[in-house]
Order: sequence, then structure tokens, then C-alpha cells
Amino acid sequence: MSTPILRLDARGSVETEDILAVEEPLDIRVNGRPFSLTMRTPGNDEDLALGLLFAEGIIETAGDVLGISRNSNSRVDIAVSPSFDPARFERKAVTNSACGICGLGEMACRTPVPRIPPSGFSISAEALCALPAALAEQQDIFRETGGLHAAACFDSVGRVLGAREDVGRHNAVDKLIGCAVRDGRLPLSSCGLLVSGRIAFEIVQKAARAGIPFLAAIGAPTSLSVQCAGAAGISLAGFLRADRANIYTGQGRVKNFYAAM
Amino acid sequence: MSTPILRLDARGSVETEDILAVEEPLDIRVNGRPFSLTMRTPGNDEDLALGLLFAEGIIETAGDVLGISRNSNSRVDIAVSPSFDPARFERKAVTNSACGICGLGEMACRTPVPRIPPSGFSISAEALCALPAALAEQQDIFRETGGLHAAACFDSVGRVLGAREDVGRHNAVDKLIGCAVRDGRLPLSSCGLLVSGRIAFEIVQKAARAGIPFLAAIGAPTSLSVQCAGAAGISLAGFLRADRANIYTGQGRVKNFYAAM
Repeated sequence: MSTPILRLDARGSVETEDILAVEEPLDIRVNGRPFSLTMRTPGNDEDLALGLLFAEGIIETAGDVLGISRNSNSRVDIAVSPSFDPARFERKAVTNSACGICGLGEMACRTPVPRIPPSGFSISAEALCALPAALAEQQDIFRETGGLHAAACFDSVGRVLGAREDVGRHNAVDKLIGCAVRDGRLPLSSCGLLVSGRIAFEIVQKAARAGIPFLAAIGAPTSLSVQCAGAAGISLAGFLRADRANIYTGQGRVKNFYAAM
Repeated sequence: MSTPILRLDARGSVETEDILAVEEPLDIRVNGRPFSLTMRTPGNDEDLALGLLFAEGIIETAGDVLGISRNSNSRVDIAVSPSFDPARFERKAVTNSACGICGLGEMACRTPVPRIPPSGFSISAEALCALPAALAEQQDIFRETGGLHAAACFDSVGRVLGAREDVGRHNAVDKLIGCAVRDGRLPLSSCGLLVSGRIAFEIVQKAARAGIPFLAAIGAPTSLSVQCAGAAGISLAGFLRADRANIYTGQGRVKNFYAAM
């Protein structure tokens, strides 16, 4: 999926297009009952449903599947033995592509991401592009293991105010925002959230709930994360490097990109 | 956490140590009832629990929390208003660090990962280190977007037999294994599973259920993934590059590393 972006690099900025990995929900039903709403990239959806049911021990072989049908681009119905007890396995969850909001039921995905409160937050292109280096300085465990995701809060001059590391990218964000909840610092209208990896839907959802006006990622955003960030009024920057960045939404919060780059 | 590994590189192989990102379950209870079993890196566990409850709309401010206590290194208890209806939010899920087995209830994590059936699978160090390039050739969407995880099956001479891409790393694995379920090809005793990112517990769990004897990752494994792979009888290779690899478990399935490297 193609989306218009503002690309910052050493020569300045240019309005161009970027191709996004598509993220869309798939409604998987077993014997007619909702089983999982999974964020996924469309394609091989029946296999995805079969693999998920197999992983969870609901089926052992293809012979346990009495029927499988696609009723739309976003729904797969699987019939198994009528003796299967769906309540035992029913997911209230939105299973999502990288966890985070699992367990909440279909509404979690269908509920609109809230629009953030007004915020005067802005950051210069120079400070934005310096964030990866600032985060790396604080990533103690990653340096040792190469195996951790990080999330950090930063202010409008690019200072890292706090960072958390975790094997789960959503855990790192939950730890940061949980700390702010504990200290009564919500909404976080005057800071941004930086993540070490990619950005999918639920990171945007978590940021929106915390009122965070700016999301920055070292990695790529998904299609749904860009759509949701736009709808929530959040600025979204991806592929952050020392000398470049892609701005997907809310470009007005990035300042001085002509002078700085 | 430190673990003994076999490191392959251009000079041959050496027995050394590698430091792993720690992955352990955290049992989060709300008003005494199980709410979530979350795979996480220990540290800031109360904040993680608060952040998760905030993200799901169970609390809005710290004032909604009547009490929070840690009863062990692996459990946090949070008390909220007695009028809170836990059944509405109860996670049957293991919330895990990167999704995949959400929705299954605590047993999903507490059930031992099954030991794989006997397998004569082996692969040369040369073929193993050529896998990242072979996968990259098949990663059409990643080349365009930089935003997708990939999973692939490979045979004992390093041929990629099939690959799937998805915004969710577990989805890519589910699509691959779901395809094998559909075609009646389980257990997958004669092939390995390659993933583009890191390996956490649930990827090992999925591989074990499918009877896959060899797991290879471009990224790092977590502590729990190494423990579980060892217990399941799965060979685990991480940090795969054209000229090096770390072998964490099941080193006997890697052949010719003196000759090849």
C-alpha cells in the first residue's frame, strides 16, 4: 500500500511516496463463534487460521476440519467437531500482530483509537534524527544481548526522559506508560514515544490512549498504524536514522528541516 | 543470562558463552483473579501491570488502583474497585511478548513444550549460513516495505521450500505450519524453520508442536526459547549471517563446520 510521506535527508525534505506493509484484521470463527480477531497481512488466510488452531491444540490434523470457508476478505469460518467446546478456547482477545491488546474482545479493535488532546509539541528534524543514538546510549541490555525491544519518552529538544527494555515490544511501552500512570503524569501531551522496532496498530492505540502526540520508530510502520495515527492526530515518523527519516503523518510537528538537514 | 554456545565463523568453531535477553512469565492478577500471564523481561513489573490495565481501559488514573503488591518475582496483584467485573476482561490468554498463543489460558504456558519425534535432520554450516540470502530472495514484500516478518521452511541442503511474510511474526509461522496441516505433512521432521527476526518462547512452542527439529533465526533468541528448545530436542541457531552463526542447542545437527567455514 502506497502512502504520501515527507522524506527528510541530508539534502532537505521532499514529498514522496512510501510503500507500507499491509496490516488488516482477520475475523476467525470456529463453529460460527468468534475465535480470534487477528491483525495480519492479507494472504494465505485459511492457512493462518489452520495454523493457529493447530498451535492451540484445537485441531491435530486436517481431518479434524469439517469445513473451511472465506466469507469475505476479512473473515474465515472453520467448522470442527460439534463436540468442540468453543467457550474453553474463546478468545475475547484481539490477537494482534505483536500482542499488546490481546484479551480485550473484538471491540478493542473496532473501538476507534481516541483522538489525542490538543498539544503544542514539536521537534526539530535535527533532534529527531539524533534520537536513535540517544536511545542506543540507554539500551544497556540490548548492547549485551541484541535481543530486546526498547521504548523511550523524549521531549521537544530530543532528550530521552526515560527508557525501558523488554523482550516484548508492547511490554516496553506498557512499562513506560504504566510509570506515567503511577506518577499521575497523563496525558503525556508534551513528549514523544520512540520505539526501537516497527510500529503496528496497537502501539498507536497505546500512544493515543496516553495522549502522546508524536511517535517515532527506528523501523517501519504498518498501513493500519499510519491510518490510525492520522485519525488520532498523532505525528508518526519511521525509518529514523542519523541522517534521514520518513514522516508519515502530522508533519507540522517537525520543525526546521530545511535548516537542519 | 549467560549460556554456552558453539560459535561458527570464518575461522571454524569455538565453544564460548552468549548473553541472552531474559524472558520469564509474569502472573498479573486483578482483584485476586488471573488477568494475564505475560512473557516479559523482569523489571518494572508493577509499571508493566499498570500500563497494561491502563491500555485496556480498566484503570484511568493511579487513583483507580486501591493496592498493588508483588508476591513473588513472578506475580503482581492489583486491587481495583470491587465493582470491576473481571469476567468482562479476564484473559484466558497467555499474553506473550510477541503474541501467538494469546487466548489459551495459563495452561498454554505451563504445559510443557512437547518433545519432538526422532529426526535424522542435519545441515552443513555452509548451507546454514547461506539461509539468510536464500530467504531474502523470497521476501518480496519486505524488499518493498521493510516492514514484514518472514518465516520459511528449509531442507537439509539449505533449500527454502516455502516462505511466508506477515506483519506478525507468529502469523508468518502459523501460515507455514497451517499449510503443512492442510496438506497432511506433519510432523515436519525433515525440515527446519527459519525466521527473520528474534526467537521467543512461543515460536519454539509452535515449532515443537509441528515436530520441527531445527530452528534458525537472523535475530537473537531469548533465555526461555533456548531453555525450551533444549527441552524439546530442537536445535536452535541464532544471529545467522553469511559468515557466522551461534548454535545454542542441538549442535549435533550442524555438520562440517570445520571444513565449510
